[in-house]
Amino acid sequence: MADKIKIGIVGYGNLGRGVQLAIGQNCDMELVGVFTRRDPSLVDTQDPSVLVEEMSALDSYSDKIDVLILCGGSKNDLPQQGPELAKKFNTVDSFDTHARIPEYFEQVNKSALAAGTTALISTGWDPGLFSLNRMMGEAMLPQGETYTFWGKGLSQGHSDAVRRVAGVKSAVQYTIPSEPAMQSVRDGKLPTLSTREKHKRECYVVLDDGADQNTVKQAIVTMPDYFADFDTTVHFIDQQTLDKDHNDMPHGGFVIRSGISAEKANQVIEFSLKLQSNPHFTASVLVAYARAVSRMSKMGLKGAQTVFDVAPGLLSIKSAQQLRKELL
Amino acid sequence: MADKIKIGIVGYGNLGRGVQLAIGQNCDMELVGVFTRRDPSLVDTQDPSVLVEEMSALDSYSDKIDVLILCGGSKNDLPQQGPELAKKFNTVDSFDTHARIPEYFEQVNKSALAAGTTALISTGWDPGLFSLNRMMGEAMLPQGETYTFWGKGLSQGHSDAVRRVAGVKSAVQYTIPSEPAMQSVRDGKLPTLSTREKHKRECYVVLDDGADQNTVKQAIVTMPDYFADFDTTVHFIDQQTLDKDHNDMPHGGFVIRSGISAEKANQVIEFSLKLQSNPHFTASVLVAYARAVSRMSKMGLKGAQTVFDVAPGLLSIKSAQQLRKELL
Repeated sequence: MADKIKIGIVGYGNLGRGVQLAIGQNCDMELVGVFTRRDPSLVDTQDPSVLVEEMSALDSYSDKIDVLILCGGSKNDLPQQGPELAKKFNTVDSFDTHARIPEYFEQVNKSALAAGTTALISTGWDPGLFSLNRMMGEAMLPQGETYTFWGKGLSQGHSDAVRRVAGVKSAVQYTIPSEPAMQSVRDGKLPTLSTREKHKRECYVVLDDGADQNTVKQAIVTMPDYFADFDTTVHFIDQQTLDKDHNDMPHGGFVIRSGISAEKANQVIEFSLKLQSNPHFTASVLVAYARAVSRMSKMGLKGAQTVFDVAPGLLSIKSAQQLRKELL
Repeated sequence: MADKIKIGIVGYGNLGRGVQLAIGQNCDMELVGVFTRRDPSLVDTQDPSVLVEEMSALDSYSDKIDVLILCGGSKNDLPQQGPELAKKFNTVDSFDTHARIPEYFEQVNKSALAAGTTALISTGWDPGLFSLNRMMGEAMLPQGETYTFWGKGLSQGHSDAVRRVAGVKSAVQYTIPSEPAMQSVRDGKLPTLSTREKHKRECYVVLDDGADQNTVKQAIVTMPDYFADFDTTVHFIDQQTLDKDHNDMPHGGFVIRSGISAEKANQVIEFSLKLQSNPHFTASVLVAYARAVSRMSKMGLKGAQTVFDVAPGLLSIKSAQQLRKELL
């Protein structure tokens, strides 16, 4: 095998840790190091062989890293880091503020074109694999509708909202796709559905000592924006059960294209994910796209890229010949 | 909008007709004509505006057609037509003899490279979209297993086998994925499953006058290779019901990747199709890939290509900017 693809990780939260572990599942890659804004001595990678450096050390690594995977947040980290780091490195990120993607693309593209780097933005599963499937469905079945359902998944924002209710000691909230809504889409009925009609909400709540179940339940299910318009279920459990059964970060969802091809034939394309760990899966997707970026950079494809620009075969460790023989 | 993409159709069976109709759903394309080995006056396109020409007339169309869509069969037509027509035209085909794809690719590639054309082989849904999903699943989750289930779908070969049984007047056979097998895969159990364990078979049979139900049923369910090792159900119906309820060519299936990412997290990726008309959907896929081929040819990407080589955004009528804004 040729030289391994040398990866650097910027930012070490759940996603950065996921990337570190995912690299270990890909024998054509190696981790050069983790770069952090924190004090490196406070970052525990649970692997003494992993180099942890301050962000400021990155400058001296431009010849030692093929692709940097940016694992910071879309709100505060990436808008600054993406355009900045593309000036010196090939990059991959999971920028997921959908409304700001065009603007972010332009900024990263400007840096990458000037520097001759390759910078893939907004990958993961949504944006990412879900985007690909929305696009493919539309291209294959131009007459039809696309539906995205999310869940079953843990929602941080909604879990926080439940925790703020008086009498709640701790809680988690899951977003769950509505089965009747999905069935209606799968049956080719082309329904008009709002986000609220497509999803229901399920809360697991541990009460403070002496708090009243009914009062807490009413406060949750009537909460405007978050729960009032949804079909919301509240389950009361003890702390031990919460810790034991609700410790994962599951997520997933469905992209369904229901279309009509010639002679009124109903055709349904469905893509779905059932993830036990949301950050670990996003990390796996980032790592596969880092392989593609390393190859695109060698092919001379410069500038900002998205999942729409990546020939799928570039994601695989297998050669084009192997892919044709084994997987086509 | 720029000039329309000019399409020629070679071969006019169910697939050719599907392509003709699918072009009508894509406003950036136009049909130049249908080319046939039959007497053109015997080909009924149900549209007097469609030009039908003999195959031999193709020579004079090399400047008038951007992409030829080859709609012949994989057994007898494409092995000869694919390499031959790529000498003068950009082409798209649905060559689906999986075992012979590498050899077919080399032959088409040789013609296309010499002529400077772009020739996309083996697209549709399997090979095609299913291949893409098998490959992507493996790239995202390197540790795991991929499962392909087919159906519910009409199988021509098995329907023919039932029709050859003494006492059978007419019949259709559906291949149906086994629900327990699919559930076990979706649950992340990574079962080992043979094709027979993954599918069951359902037959709808019209008897000849005076034929005995039990004799016919036994002859079917004990037929070696075709039915003996499968869970097979036989329904007896009258000719009128067969004509009314079993006249479509439905098909579909599932590609499921069940993987383990870091820290033993179970991750399941699933892609499925539920098609009322198998040939019309295949046609829709061919037409979208014809758009990509027209663009790849303009970009100077010559030679044989597969779905693994096509940047997904090239399939869409939308610009890269629109795709980022609307679908990412």
